[in-house]
Amino acid sequence: MSDDDRVAPFDLVVFGGAGDLAMRKLLPALYERERDRRLPEDGHVLAVARSPMTEEEYRARAKQALETHVPRETLEPALVARFIKRLGYVACDAANPQDLARLKPRLPDRGHVRAFYLATAPNLFGPICQALGAAGMAVPGSRVVLEKPIGHDLASSRAVNDQVGAVFAEDRVFRIDHYLGKETVQNLMALRFANRLFERLWDAGEIDHVQITVAETLGVEGRGDYYDRTGALRDMVQNHLMQLLCLVAMEPPARLDADAVRDEKVKVLKSLKPVAGPEAAQATVRGQYMAGAIDGQAVPAYAQEIGRNAQTLTETFVALRVHVENWRWAGVPFYLRTGKRLAERRSEIVVQFRAVPHLIFPPSAGELVDNRLVIRLQPDEGIHLVLTTKTPTPGRLRLQRAALNLSFAETLHGRMPDAYERLVTDVLRGNQTLFMRRDEVDWAWRFIEPIHDAWDAAGDAPKHYPAGSWGPAASTVLIARDGRAWREELV
Amino acid sequence: MSDDDRVAPFDLVVFGGAGDLAMRKLLPALYERERDRRLPEDGHVLAVARSPMTEEEYRARAKQALETHVPRETLEPALVARFIKRLGYVACDAANPQDLARLKPRLPDRGHVRAFYLATAPNLFGPICQALGAAGMAVPGSRVVLEKPIGHDLASSRAVNDQVGAVFAEDRVFRIDHYLGKETVQNLMALRFANRLFERLWDAGEIDHVQITVAETLGVEGRGDYYDRTGALRDMVQNHLMQLLCLVAMEPPARLDADAVRDEKVKVLKSLKPVAGPEAAQATVRGQYMAGAIDGQAVPAYAQEIGRNAQTLTETFVALRVHVENWRWAGVPFYLRTGKRLAERRSEIVVQFRAVPHLIFPPSAGELVDNRLVIRLQPDEGIHLVLTTKTPTPGRLRLQRAALNLSFAETLHGRMPDAYERLVTDVLRGNQTLFMRRDEVDWAWRFIEPIHDAWDAAGDAPKHYPAGSWGPAASTVLIARDGRAWREELV
Repeated sequence: MSDDDRVAPFDLVVFGGAGDLAMRKLLPALYERERDRRLPEDGHVLAVARSPMTEEEYRARAKQALETHVPRETLEPALVARFIKRLGYVACDAANPQDLARLKPRLPDRGHVRAFYLATAPNLFGPICQALGAAGMAVPGSRVVLEKPIGHDLASSRAVNDQVGAVFAEDRVFRIDHYLGKETVQNLMALRFANRLFERLWDAGEIDHVQITVAETLGVEGRGDYYDRTGALRDMVQNHLMQLLCLVAMEPPARLDADAVRDEKVKVLKSLKPVAGPEAAQATVRGQYMAGAIDGQAVPAYAQEIGRNAQTLTETFVALRVHVENWRWAGVPFYLRTGKRLAERRSEIVVQFRAVPHLIFPPSAGELVDNRLVIRLQPDEGIHLVLTTKTPTPGRLRLQRAALNLSFAETLHGRMPDAYERLVTDVLRGNQTLFMRRDEVDWAWRFIEPIHDAWDAAGDAPKHYPAGSWGPAASTVLIARDGRAWREELV
Repeated sequence: MSDDDRVAPFDLVVFGGAGDLAMRKLLPALYERERDRRLPEDGHVLAVARSPMTEEEYRARAKQALETHVPRETLEPALVARFIKRLGYVACDAANPQDLARLKPRLPDRGHVRAFYLATAPNLFGPICQALGAAGMAVPGSRVVLEKPIGHDLASSRAVNDQVGAVFAEDRVFRIDHYLGKETVQNLMALRFANRLFERLWDAGEIDHVQITVAETLGVEGRGDYYDRTGALRDMVQNHLMQLLCLVAMEPPARLDADAVRDEKVKVLKSLKPVAGPEAAQATVRGQYMAGAIDGQAVPAYAQEIGRNAQTLTETFVALRVHVENWRWAGVPFYLRTGKRLAERRSEIVVQFRAVPHLIFPPSAGELVDNRLVIRLQPDEGIHLVLTTKTPTPGRLRLQRAALNLSFAETLHGRMPDAYERLVTDVLRGNQTLFMRRDEVDWAWRFIEPIHDAWDAAGDAPKHYPAGSWGPAASTVLIARDGRAWREELV
């Protein structure tokens, strides 16, 4: 690795710096960069939170967090000791501009890269940015990082983006979708555009359909209030699944720079066939989990888990069929699904190629499996190309399925970096490629909102599914109507 | 496996039944079919050779051969005992028709499949067939199996085929090229025609060039007299390399039947651009090995190995550039090379795809490796798809080479059957797909002969290369002139 991987001197201010995301993800990610010798001598992290705490107390908590969340094989006490010296702490109520002004003395203007990471409740995004601007801390070149969710619909996301945008120009706003930081997701771009092989097959002529699955076994895990106001469509589809869809469907950008890539993604979002009104009943399925079992453990129904006796109409599962209306994808359905309390934790993209046009093999050879490329994000990141090969036997010709596998963890022997390692490094280096531009968020909402409106108008309840299943039967029907099936077996 | 894998009752007569091929390959292959319970109760092998020997003595030698050549893990004494009971022996001079008639009483007409396997000197192919015909043993439905070489040029191969053909119609003649029995070679057909993926990319638009390498580390191993009259072009290129070329280049047959497949192979041979006259100097390289070292052991020069002090002009290495002149392959060179005493024992087909048309990645990402598909026949059968992927690092984007691997031995867990298991089974079942039809042999000679004529006319000596190298420097130049290189590194 050459030195240009290093990050310039920086001051990273983390609002919500004592919270879960900071402790579980951000600090461990920065620690790994420390361990890779990629942080500059002069790189500082200033945590901001409401709890009154001394810097020493904060560092002790940070140390404990690293010891808990950094994997054994990379945890080195000497490096931890060095890393926590970078950490500062300021107790203040970020919602209170006067209070927030107390940060200023801690941020002398010394030509460092300055980034404000807002790992806070989303309703504070606007107020914090306004206060930073008012206090003169949003100096030229400083940037702001926003975690999801940004609003809960088009209007509210625009309001947040307006407030943020009044202080930070778009080229200084980093909207995180941590799926984009995953190695396999980035590898999807390398696969498509660094290889002749796939891009030449990447269209309606060769591809039958695409499946994108983000399946969780967890329930709402203490986020019940938030989740019940949000639901799977807004919590998962509007951001993660839409982003994956864009990466699969986009045209090759002219260059791998932030705006060229994001221009192509926006073009995909603009090309989506609207799912609205009566079409929504055909092309979407909502589900909500009932009591069931995950890994042999009984788990309660959603309504019970969030502590409501009353019925709630919030969906914990969504399946939908999407069409990208352009030359490349005409007639190729994209089937998306996501849900909580499903049978497996698994996120993957399945690109299903069409069948061979003509079969030269005798029926006794057995059935061909149609080629597919599986890009798996969770639980094990890897790429699998499913082929038909000959069974090695001197008897009659028989065909069988085989998979060419590229398991990153195994094949590359290296440690798989966490998505946040890349994302926080990109923030400090000012590379916006893996962050959502304002118009991407806008166009994703424009697609999502009419679906919600159609559901609200229909007024029917989500379909029930037992926890530990693959969602409601209607999800199977959605894809079976087209003569296809969700891929649920392993490669 | 269903019962239709079984072979009908048979009498297999093996001329040269006490020879090397029978002992090392044929009997072990039949034994494995015994072990797979795929031989009928009523299946008999009648070995014929000149040595006076009792049946008991022959069986004892066969038992010893199995114990030597069958792998430990499949050698079972009870099965060996059962198998050798199938063996009979007749001492006779196959070149002598009167003597050969003594076979007849051992071959009662009992409705069995009858096959004559000619594992003899090639000059006996014609005489044996004539004698079989004259003695009335070539009953309808009986078949004959010919090992290579069939002639040493077009005229002599035609003469042999005429003699054989006077007794056995073409649909009863099985010309063996054991490369066609290799699992990976057969899998090449499955790869191409059972998968959408590759066939759609299989043309001049996507493929830059093809390399076919059959490299041996062995010298001539006691075959000096024969080899010196033959040379690498006739010993290897005319059959094995031409066959591999045909399988890579052929159009999809309409069905996987013997004539449909062989029709397509003949079409390739007919489409080869002739290499003749002055063109031969440009498109071919002949080499002969000098003293050198193989695996750290000193080995003598070819002329010394065959016991000649005088200079010999026989080539032990050939490289050539071939063009298939049709729509699919216009402008795509096929580079073929084979030789003895090379750096490695390796047989493989490399299908090199073109570069991506446009590079979106920054120069700092490193160089892309252009996609290639490697079909390896020796030493380890397997398929490798070489791709460019992203290096898993949170630093700047870097690309690296990765291979999706399908190693049959590892992935499929099964024993890899030897080529002869399949081929001898196909003979007994009457499936000619993997055997060379007469016109294939003809057209291969039509391509090869002018090359030899050009060499003879030029009268120059083969280029020298040290044993243990990859052949003469001229071979590197042959492909480098086109801006390409032999692939010598492992995947």
